[in-house]
Amino acid sequence: MRDLRDRRFSSVLLIARGTSDHVADYAQYLFPCSAGLIASSASPSVAVAYRARVPLHGVLAIAISQSGATAEIVETARWAKAMGAVTVGITNVAGSPLAMSVDLPLITKAGPEVAVPATKTYTSALAAVAYIAAVIGERTDLMAHLAQMPQVLQTTLELPWDLERAAAMFSGSNTAVLTGRGFTAGVARESALKLKETSGINAVGASVADFVHGPVAVLVPGLPVACFSPGAASPIAAGLEDLVARAVARHCQILTIGQHDALQRLATVHVATPAVPEELAPFPLIVPGQLLAERVATLCGMDPDAPSGLNKITQTT
Amino acid sequence: MRDLRDRRFSSVLLIARGTSDHVADYAQYLFPCSAGLIASSASPSVAVAYRARVPLHGVLAIAISQSGATAEIVETARWAKAMGAVTVGITNVAGSPLAMSVDLPLITKAGPEVAVPATKTYTSALAAVAYIAAVIGERTDLMAHLAQMPQVLQTTLELPWDLERAAAMFSGSNTAVLTGRGFTAGVARESALKLKETSGINAVGASVADFVHGPVAVLVPGLPVACFSPGAASPIAAGLEDLVARAVARHCQILTIGQHDALQRLATVHVATPAVPEELAPFPLIVPGQLLAERVATLCGMDPDAPSGLNKITQTT
Repeated sequence: MRDLRDRRFSSVLLIARGTSDHVADYAQYLFPCSAGLIASSASPSVAVAYRARVPLHGVLAIAISQSGATAEIVETARWAKAMGAVTVGITNVAGSPLAMSVDLPLITKAGPEVAVPATKTYTSALAAVAYIAAVIGERTDLMAHLAQMPQVLQTTLELPWDLERAAAMFSGSNTAVLTGRGFTAGVARESALKLKETSGINAVGASVADFVHGPVAVLVPGLPVACFSPGAASPIAAGLEDLVARAVARHCQILTIGQHDALQRLATVHVATPAVPEELAPFPLIVPGQLLAERVATLCGMDPDAPSGLNKITQTT
Repeated sequence: MRDLRDRRFSSVLLIARGTSDHVADYAQYLFPCSAGLIASSASPSVAVAYRARVPLHGVLAIAISQSGATAEIVETARWAKAMGAVTVGITNVAGSPLAMSVDLPLITKAGPEVAVPATKTYTSALAAVAYIAAVIGERTDLMAHLAQMPQVLQTTLELPWDLERAAAMFSGSNTAVLTGRGFTAGVARESALKLKETSGINAVGASVADFVHGPVAVLVPGLPVACFSPGAASPIAAGLEDLVARAVARHCQILTIGQHDALQRLATVHVATPAVPEELAPFPLIVPGQLLAERVATLCGMDPDAPSGLNKITQTT
């Protein structure tokens, strides 16, 4: 990865869809906050449907695809390279079309993703993004914290919490709201996607900041609402507390996740995940989101590993 | 606007929330496809919560806020300027904090936005974005087409279509799916937001391309689904047809909007909006979305102009 440190980039452009796009959500906060580089998502349609010609010299384009075989993502990565970007591909499959198309493939080696809804490859792609940011930002402290994440994940998996009650809240509804902000907004979106994929619940994953611009009107009695917190000391903590208080006032059913006493006091169910630096918040937080989706699917009589109507490699037409 | 033409920008950074963010969705396609500039959205939290320091020299930052008074957007625009960007502010209020904070204020002069859910200021902000893209891209043809939009909007408002039946489809559900892609993805999100704001329906607005990566599992019998098409000749037409066919197979109730015979044949209700160049697709398409939200709210016994729990100027805490 020496190449990345040796070059100066003006910005990071993320290329992803679905679960991988929620890794890109994380990268949009991590690169500016931890490596001093603005980062944002490309719209693949700009490349593959509209075939726009835009100069991308000085841009670091990072394409993320578990399979490395989604044609739209591979084609957009090739387009970014042709437009002048340096391209990185984060994928779980060595030798995949994505790995073969980019300047620097980064293989996550998470092992085969057996279930259709991606879980471990989401987390390993988060780690790949954090690794790149630590290299570019020359953040040895971030790298050291990153090395602790396997233990943090193990601890989180073994945490006692009332999963049955939380799963009953969500399985009884055809819709739901999952929120976070900043470093945790992507976790909320990813958890909402897992509920959609495994249980057919039309869950909305949204940033709290976006949510208060209108969608609060959807908070009705009984609606299941989840809130993912990076911790009570975060600059975004007050915004999360405000939204959860509004949901309480409207008699929603509330699941909160994170080290955050003020949220815990308001919640129907709380999961006190291990404290980690905010830059790495998604690692422990996603685990309860994934466990929830698995349990809700089972309660709904569905197979969480093989949802109807989905294939492992998604092609966009 | 001579300044914009005299400078060379490396990229466009959009700063917006809520309805204005759906104008930004449009800009993400318009700038690369029509003006040769990559464009993407900033995360305001990066500036206002995490106070990241990132170089933005050569970047054109466009902040969009109807009121020009949402502190988070004003502060992010100031941050972008401090980081080296040239800043434009699109707002309906001359003399607003946003107008006073940017290098180039662009006042939309749509008149007071009386209803809480923004409608005419959404459309006028689309026009401001199209104007900037036409100037930078030196696209006199686009400017000429843009000048025809008032007439197109008038024609669309007077179109005969079965609004009552469409509104009954949506008012009978607590959730819904609204889709588009590329130039029409933002229209789908904006229409979903209007339904959320006015009727409390937890509607999901999504790109068709994102939708096939998982959320298709939510297509259940009776679910109201809307699809916004830029026309049958668009490179994204086939993707829209595929999704609508899947929704038909799953017995959803379907509203389609646009000049698109293949969609019309599949739809429960269709609105044949006037044909316009794909670059300007959102202008006619949003009108049925807004009319739908107004009618659904009335059917739900709510006041579409003054939804509960919302204020005209949204402050993010």
